[in-house]
Amino acid sequence: MRPHLHHTHADRAPVELESAFTVDSSRVTFGAGSLGEVGDRVASHLPDPDRAQGGRVALFTDARLRATEWYDDTLTSLRRRNLEVVVFDEVLVEPTDVSVEAAVAFARETCADAFVSLGGGSVMDTAKLANLLATHPGDLLDYVNAPLGGGRPVPGALKPHVACPTTSGTGSEVTGIAIFDLLSAHAKTGVSSARLRPTEAVVDPRTTASLPAAVVASSGLDVLCHAIESLTARPFTSRAASSPATARPASQGANPWSDLGARQAIELIGRYLRRAVADAHDDEARTQLMWAATLAGIAFGNAGVHVPHAMAYAVAGRLHDIGGDYRPVGYPQGAPLVPHGFAVAVSAPAAFRALAATAPFRHLEAARLLGGDTAGVAPGEAGDVLAETMAGLMHDVGAPNGIGGVGYTLADVPDLVKGAAPQRRLLDNAPSQVHEAELDAIFRDALRCW
Amino acid sequence: MRPHLHHTHADRAPVELESAFTVDSSRVTFGAGSLGEVGDRVASHLPDPDRAQGGRVALFTDARLRATEWYDDTLTSLRRRNLEVVVFDEVLVEPTDVSVEAAVAFARETCADAFVSLGGGSVMDTAKLANLLATHPGDLLDYVNAPLGGGRPVPGALKPHVACPTTSGTGSEVTGIAIFDLLSAHAKTGVSSARLRPTEAVVDPRTTASLPAAVVASSGLDVLCHAIESLTARPFTSRAASSPATARPASQGANPWSDLGARQAIELIGRYLRRAVADAHDDEARTQLMWAATLAGIAFGNAGVHVPHAMAYAVAGRLHDIGGDYRPVGYPQGAPLVPHGFAVAVSAPAAFRALAATAPFRHLEAARLLGGDTAGVAPGEAGDVLAETMAGLMHDVGAPNGIGGVGYTLADVPDLVKGAAPQRRLLDNAPSQVHEAELDAIFRDALRCW
Repeated sequence: MRPHLHHTHADRAPVELESAFTVDSSRVTFGAGSLGEVGDRVASHLPDPDRAQGGRVALFTDARLRATEWYDDTLTSLRRRNLEVVVFDEVLVEPTDVSVEAAVAFARETCADAFVSLGGGSVMDTAKLANLLATHPGDLLDYVNAPLGGGRPVPGALKPHVACPTTSGTGSEVTGIAIFDLLSAHAKTGVSSARLRPTEAVVDPRTTASLPAAVVASSGLDVLCHAIESLTARPFTSRAASSPATARPASQGANPWSDLGARQAIELIGRYLRRAVADAHDDEARTQLMWAATLAGIAFGNAGVHVPHAMAYAVAGRLHDIGGDYRPVGYPQGAPLVPHGFAVAVSAPAAFRALAATAPFRHLEAARLLGGDTAGVAPGEAGDVLAETMAGLMHDVGAPNGIGGVGYTLADVPDLVKGAAPQRRLLDNAPSQVHEAELDAIFRDALRCW
Repeated sequence: MRPHLHHTHADRAPVELESAFTVDSSRVTFGAGSLGEVGDRVASHLPDPDRAQGGRVALFTDARLRATEWYDDTLTSLRRRNLEVVVFDEVLVEPTDVSVEAAVAFARETCADAFVSLGGGSVMDTAKLANLLATHPGDLLDYVNAPLGGGRPVPGALKPHVACPTTSGTGSEVTGIAIFDLLSAHAKTGVSSARLRPTEAVVDPRTTASLPAAVVASSGLDVLCHAIESLTARPFTSRAASSPATARPASQGANPWSDLGARQAIELIGRYLRRAVADAHDDEARTQLMWAATLAGIAFGNAGVHVPHAMAYAVAGRLHDIGGDYRPVGYPQGAPLVPHGFAVAVSAPAAFRALAATAPFRHLEAARLLGGDTAGVAPGEAGDVLAETMAGLMHDVGAPNGIGGVGYTLADVPDLVKGAAPQRRLLDNAPSQVHEAELDAIFRDALRCW
């Protein structure tokens, strides 16, 4: 079988296109009570799991979680294996290079044998970066994705890391991605490497029982976008082949593996998100959402997200500049904030409407899986049907109504475009070309969703 | 949430049932040409991937494959990374303790830094066992599953192993299972441990282009049984909880993760197996079968198979005793042989018919995914519909017509029951209790499939 050749430009050499994909995940333990296994799981990765003094564990969490029974369960489980536990609980809701540096200093001083993280994406991402810089030499910026950072490859394996998510959202427990705000550049950036992927994920859905409704809504919409963006990303076969092949990126495009998890996650969100938001005691719905988050994490960790996530950087990041005052109930009220999931979701219906023409059947499939009525819908209407189905769900779970719903107006669109356009790694994973003109049209359409 | 308690017997203490599952897979690279990546992938797991002399690799294969271009591709790829390659090509089609011991002696002498296997399940399983016994002390029997062996846990990580399957069948590239014939006991047995799972699987579907039709048929039916048995295994929540939780077995029962891969594999087999058997040049069909084999491997490696696989040990193992003379075209003609996939498939329709009453909706779903007409079928007919749908496929791809089709008669049933009944690890993974009486009824029903 010959490799597919693709002429990108009449007078350039042909580019060899990709003919394979590489997929990976953390070992995943899922179930009520599984936090009680963390100690055994950590010990199993240490050189001599049965020695009397088991080793030292750096436990990352935040101040809110430290007061919960989930923290107690984790600590008890670690101590039962005679592990010495040193705690870092100063993780911020939106980590910055400054807060990450503090975590790195802690980790370097601690000389931990293993890492455990208990929290949302911010806690797990902070632990990944602390593990990286306590295990290997260099500064944070050396490893940050270019162009903001040096883009240095992670040189070797990290210490064992058992990640325990407490929100049904980021999927960080199964990805090799860590995101933070680089304060000096006023931009979100991060490190992406398969070596950053936690060794194990321990997903205990009981932890989501106490989440406020808005947090469940926002993180559930983030999961939905992980899944739809993975399903509609450019096919892996349309990317130039990596050299060496081991350098194939996580954002490799849609593939048969990521499709599986993405489809199931979309279906679960369609079936359970309204219930989980409406009733904190609906154990079944919240458990299924947690599973959807893990599946969507595995999907986008092996396919990559695209336009809505690229636009979210601008939507969340520019709120301060416009003097916006969006403060959703259930989130800290100290400062205006667009939670990550809402920041992604507000532009997503407009993005899918604009992109569907290139991959109409996948957009139609997403609409059907989400519960939309797709009977007799023509391929040309796929984007509209998906946009309307998603907007209906957003409306029902109390999401803001488009970027207008968090305070942006038509006059802010050029600035938002400027904020999103540099996210080439994400934008290049879209099913068709997206540059400033396309972003401008999508932001205008995203002023309201319904 | 309280753990579920289950009283197994009126006067015994209640047993705590499982509330979590643990899933895992090898890193998988899938695509035409991916054998060219083996060298880079092996090097990435060695201490210093860029040193001039990269290290020593033990390459396991068999005599037939050694003459193919797939072997050349693999060797070239390894040498391009300056890896020293030492080859063991004496793997048998059905490995025995004697052939495995020879491989172990080779591996111990070689002191390899990494293992590569290129072949079917027999080659990959032999490499797993050689890696185990070249890395850790002890004899083969120490690690073999009880009661035939000592059941000793694998004490630590093995050397890196990149497994490259060349048949769309066993899924051994993503499981921690290695099977062989223990000659002294006249029985198939093996070693099962998450640590035996290859570090990476490199799945190049080009390798299946030269497989004879009967090999594609037999291995495809094996894949189908991996998938249906995983989907219909007892639910993970019906098993007693493991202690410690890290001792949770691979045969943990059906769970939401294994369900995903199992469903997709059944659908792909239904859609592509007839085409792949009929036309060796149908690249699409053979590629999709290879993908189905990987997915089903991930499914059963995390859920476990049950009755048809337990019965297959007897069906394959007793042929000699009855003076059977089944010699399928496309397999070595030197001695009578029931290829593994056919040995599993001949009893499967009867097994599913007998077991469906406990889990009718899952059996009906399997029938529908396989292409059966399930419209208006009552749950009580689920077993019949699945059995007939599968029998129709077996007929069309040239499988033997039940255990009668390979030479067994009603008089042989008691002996077959005796051969299958000791396979408790597999039988206990069935959706309902299966002992000698049930096996007797299923073997009688399996005398013919259509």
